[in-house]
Amino acid sequence: MAASGRRTRSPRGEDERTLVAWLASLPATGGRLGDDAATFAARAAHVVTVDSQIAGVHFVPDLEPEVIARRLIAINLSDVAAMGARPSHAFLALAAPPGFPHRRFFTALLRHAAKHGLLLAGGDLARAPQVYASLTVIGERWPRARRWLRRDEARPGDAILLGGTVGESALGLELVRRGARLASARGVTFPRSLRLPPGLLRAARRAVRRHLLPEPQLELGGWLATRRRGAALDVSDGVARDLHRLCAASGTGAAVELERLPRPAGFEPLAAWLGLEPRPLLLGGGEDYVLLFTLPPSEAALATQRGARLIGRVERAPAITLVLGGGRREPLPDLGWDNLRAHGAREPVSARA
Amino acid sequence: MAASGRRTRSPRGEDERTLVAWLASLPATGGRLGDDAATFAARAAHVVTVDSQIAGVHFVPDLEPEVIARRLIAINLSDVAAMGARPSHAFLALAAPPGFPHRRFFTALLRHAAKHGLLLAGGDLARAPQVYASLTVIGERWPRARRWLRRDEARPGDAILLGGTVGESALGLELVRRGARLASARGVTFPRSLRLPPGLLRAARRAVRRHLLPEPQLELGGWLATRRRGAALDVSDGVARDLHRLCAASGTGAAVELERLPRPAGFEPLAAWLGLEPRPLLLGGGEDYVLLFTLPPSEAALATQRGARLIGRVERAPAITLVLGGGRREPLPDLGWDNLRAHGAREPVSARA
Repeated sequence: MAASGRRTRSPRGEDERTLVAWLASLPATGGRLGDDAATFAARAAHVVTVDSQIAGVHFVPDLEPEVIARRLIAINLSDVAAMGARPSHAFLALAAPPGFPHRRFFTALLRHAAKHGLLLAGGDLARAPQVYASLTVIGERWPRARRWLRRDEARPGDAILLGGTVGESALGLELVRRGARLASARGVTFPRSLRLPPGLLRAARRAVRRHLLPEPQLELGGWLATRRRGAALDVSDGVARDLHRLCAASGTGAAVELERLPRPAGFEPLAAWLGLEPRPLLLGGGEDYVLLFTLPPSEAALATQRGARLIGRVERAPAITLVLGGGRREPLPDLGWDNLRAHGAREPVSARA
Repeated sequence: MAASGRRTRSPRGEDERTLVAWLASLPATGGRLGDDAATFAARAAHVVTVDSQIAGVHFVPDLEPEVIARRLIAINLSDVAAMGARPSHAFLALAAPPGFPHRRFFTALLRHAAKHGLLLAGGDLARAPQVYASLTVIGERWPRARRWLRRDEARPGDAILLGGTVGESALGLELVRRGARLASARGVTFPRSLRLPPGLLRAARRAVRRHLLPEPQLELGGWLATRRRGAALDVSDGVARDLHRLCAASGTGAAVELERLPRPAGFEPLAAWLGLEPRPLLLGGGEDYVLLFTLPPSEAALATQRGARLIGRVERAPAITLVLGGGRREPLPDLGWDNLRAHGAREPVSARA
């Protein structure tokens, strides 16, 4: 479904975008759905975001409680980063089966929260057959911020930038599906049966870590909030889908150069060894948790000095195109993850196509 | 376990109170866990609460989506009421299986939210094998409120009051377990095999509604917030356990008169027909979602004029006692629901004892 770029209505229910568009059109949602987090209160003094991690849906059921906790925080904080906010308070809803090591989970959660200045201020506990953790995070303004970041502020001519590499998390997921594990004490391990070539070990370890323990780009988001203008969101469902979202919100098109998409070291050999096509991984692998943003061209160099990579330009025409080697252009399909359609553990696009 | 009042450490994990006490002692939670919602931000301008509804844990799996939505809102707003706050913004995390009628769920959620002035401002959607809904609600001050309500402000000599009847929700749960259902269109229905006597029909219907669609006491909470002093919380896990919590937080004891606990009309005959002991239902049935609060004796009459019932007195001695007919006193056991120990659908205390 996803890789073809066609939108079909599943007989088992509608897709996420249609549902969210319907919700956003209703008065009782205040017309404010759509960004990575909601702003609320007089003078929009805070942002609020909520994200969940469910065993068997977002991670393999035997993931260590410490890793679940850190991943839950990281994914929420990536939304806070995408608003240009600083995390302040968190509220947890945790359901877990009997015997779940709550203290290990909470110890890791609180340690990781404190690292980011986040206070766990409340929550709700329940028992359930599987782990279901949902975190609500409230963010506030950084001291020098001028604004919240929004996805609808791209203008034709803007530079399009990525805060980090893409595709690596999808490689990590594939390795986890083949038995790679991350234990707090032992680091990343691979099953002997995988026969991973030693030359790929380093890239493979990094991919597993990147998938399980993403690093939210809070500093970059905070810096973007000091700029006057430009759209931003975090790449959770694939850079292609998230760029479509940014352009749809801003009423613009875009041209992205495939060769400029930043890849981690060892990306191509590892993808090849896993038998995966690099392009769908880069464009639609998802869970990259880097910021995708636009800036006026004069400010792009300031962002690249901070490690971001220029990948394309915002265009007036509504088309979203991928520029290949030699300047050939083709439509960039809206491929990536749909939270309502997907089932089982998240799969890389190549396996879903 | 629960009805005996003894606290045992389960081999399958610790209990909720021990875990929450440990959490509250850690610096990264800010020492603020314990009330029904958290206050946060400069000058504590808002409260935040989070509560979940999980299929098979908090409700029977075939519950209609409209009822799940209304129950989710009601249970969260009961916490907001217990803080003396007015609901303002909600954030939803919803995981549901393929084919779940999202629009029916959201239509009911938004209609019920709007009724209480609550805006759905954001959320997160996922697929999962069962329905898991978690709602975070932000509340603000009522215009005439002087304070947030807290559970640690009871003083010896205070009157103890209940905002409504107890035990009815537990009867309703028992009826649901025996096949009673609530359909938005058809109202409460009972299976023919139940052979419910016609004289109990009215009380039974009301009990099922009370269990599935509790009414948060927002007005009463708002009024309490205009008073200078007094502790409050909402009765979610049974009046006995919640009174223990209030007294532990306030450093007091209490004496409650069994005969003063307000029962709904037809409570005893319905309990008898269901083969359930009335006393554990009243004291530990739980999910009553009425406010349990204390006030200086001079203000108790103002509360009873608003429909609350005087049930006892706060005492200096740390004992929590139940006063029976003829003035006989016995210790009131800390019985009720434990969110970590319980499994399967919530059961009335009599079935767990």
